[in-house]
Amino acid sequence: MRRYGIIGTGAIGGYYGGRLQQAGYDVHFLTRSDYPALQTQGLRVDSVFGDFVLPQVQAYDNAADMPPCDVVVVALKATQNHYLAQILPPLLGENTTLVLLQNGLGVEPELAAQFPSTTILGGLCFVCAQKVGPGHIRHLDYEAIALAQYGPHYAPQGITPILEAIATDFAAAGIEIHAKPHLMQSRWEKLVWNIPYNGLSVVLNAQTDQLMANPATRALVEDLMAEVAQGAAACGCEITPAIITKMLAHTEAMTPYLTSMKLDYDRQQPLELEAIVGNPLRFAQSGGAILPKITMLHQQLQFLNTANLRN
Amino acid sequence: MRRYGIIGTGAIGGYYGGRLQQAGYDVHFLTRSDYPALQTQGLRVDSVFGDFVLPQVQAYDNAADMPPCDVVVVALKATQNHYLAQILPPLLGENTTLVLLQNGLGVEPELAAQFPSTTILGGLCFVCAQKVGPGHIRHLDYEAIALAQYGPHYAPQGITPILEAIATDFAAAGIEIHAKPHLMQSRWEKLVWNIPYNGLSVVLNAQTDQLMANPATRALVEDLMAEVAQGAAACGCEITPAIITKMLAHTEAMTPYLTSMKLDYDRQQPLELEAIVGNPLRFAQSGGAILPKITMLHQQLQFLNTANLRN
Repeated sequence: MRRYGIIGTGAIGGYYGGRLQQAGYDVHFLTRSDYPALQTQGLRVDSVFGDFVLPQVQAYDNAADMPPCDVVVVALKATQNHYLAQILPPLLGENTTLVLLQNGLGVEPELAAQFPSTTILGGLCFVCAQKVGPGHIRHLDYEAIALAQYGPHYAPQGITPILEAIATDFAAAGIEIHAKPHLMQSRWEKLVWNIPYNGLSVVLNAQTDQLMANPATRALVEDLMAEVAQGAAACGCEITPAIITKMLAHTEAMTPYLTSMKLDYDRQQPLELEAIVGNPLRFAQSGGAILPKITMLHQQLQFLNTANLRN
Repeated sequence: MRRYGIIGTGAIGGYYGGRLQQAGYDVHFLTRSDYPALQTQGLRVDSVFGDFVLPQVQAYDNAADMPPCDVVVVALKATQNHYLAQILPPLLGENTTLVLLQNGLGVEPELAAQFPSTTILGGLCFVCAQKVGPGHIRHLDYEAIALAQYGPHYAPQGITPILEAIATDFAAAGIEIHAKPHLMQSRWEKLVWNIPYNGLSVVLNAQTDQLMANPATRALVEDLMAEVAQGAAACGCEITPAIITKMLAHTEAMTPYLTSMKLDYDRQQPLELEAIVGNPLRFAQSGGAILPKITMLHQQLQFLNTANLRN
């Protein structure tokens, strides 16, 4: 049975790590602010799929105290990835697999450069969850993960044995998981949603339902999605009109929602701006695509992020 | 000596109308909210070019009480132009000239359709002034007007006798005024400033100096100006690189400044959105230009304007 290390015990790390431990896996949680709570009270997850409490968890506030793990799940905000160079080495054995549960594009090549002999998987989480207190996660809706193996320059790797094995562990823990053959394709598919809604929710101080209700911003959302499709095409990926139609319908059916970038903004935390907007833009531009509206969104978000952190 | 009617005694109408009366012209002021103050205390102008008080002014709160005028100066916000169909008829004699001191594009053709036998001039004001109380204007900087005659479809009219005569009146009142041959060219030149700074100040809650200090928004300002130049070209006008360079340098040298659109937004008043952004966009599109960033700015401002007026 594989041993899991969870880097960051926020909504994502707490929920999925909690599910794995609940299913009997040997899970080790790294946390900074929640260490005392996890030590004394354990981990509590209020979930639409059934609440659960883990009275005892293996929690650490220092990666150096953690054992080497078979699978290390990175569940930090992408803005904190600069800590990984220090955090990861004690956790990495010869056959450790890194699983990045992060949004955006361009995070894997950075880690691949730092840890060239480590297998890296990337995961996209389709989940509504938030940390509501120390060691206390509220899981509101969905839980699916799209998981795929990273290869140099995001070349498609297919369904590899380690990808299949880890997906099987997650599935055994009751988590809806989809093993995917092409990580970059999966990442662009999620960007169809993330770029317009994360970006505009911050710039226009708006929830998803408000953006959809106003005809001008509804049109802008579609324009941005069309540019994401152009960007994907410039990277050899394909966003079909059906994917866009599905995202729009899905968002209209959703409960009004503050995006993760908007939540970060309101808490005056750094935005995942480069992972979600800047890197995709640069990948698309290297492939020859010109994306004026995403460029403008990036420019506006850079301004707001800087002003927000200065206040 | 020509008789002037001033429609709207805010910062623009109060300042220029006050200067005309100070110089001895027969000036009649239409005002709504400031009627009692103008009747009892007259008009007070605190100006960088010298303060002055006009203890007695001819003020009206109903256009039907006003005499026909030789020149009717419209100094309302463009968002209030729907009142003009009712306001103007009593003021228009056979030889009355309308002078629109308003920003943006597309206001003259609407009035020309309503008053086909009236000569229309358009004026662009380069002035920092604000109303600080009833019948009390503060004039902070600049005062130049670019004035030109309107002709069907904005065809250039050259320097006509009536344009020259009215410019001479303004100059006699000590106002810096420039008679211009091509109204649409003058309007596009002002849009080089108005579209980026008015628009972004609202969307990003920012002053001009903050937009210039951040490299991302500084680049966005330049991108938007380049699109204004493309729009102008599609309308047969020319925005040279020198005009853009001058606008940027000028803005960098300016005192930090909240734009008129931002002031309207903060007072929860309707934005001059169609005059300043929507109409120029449509004129440019009819000429075949595609302006994605101005389109996006327009979409964002429509959303914010609607949300702002609803609150």
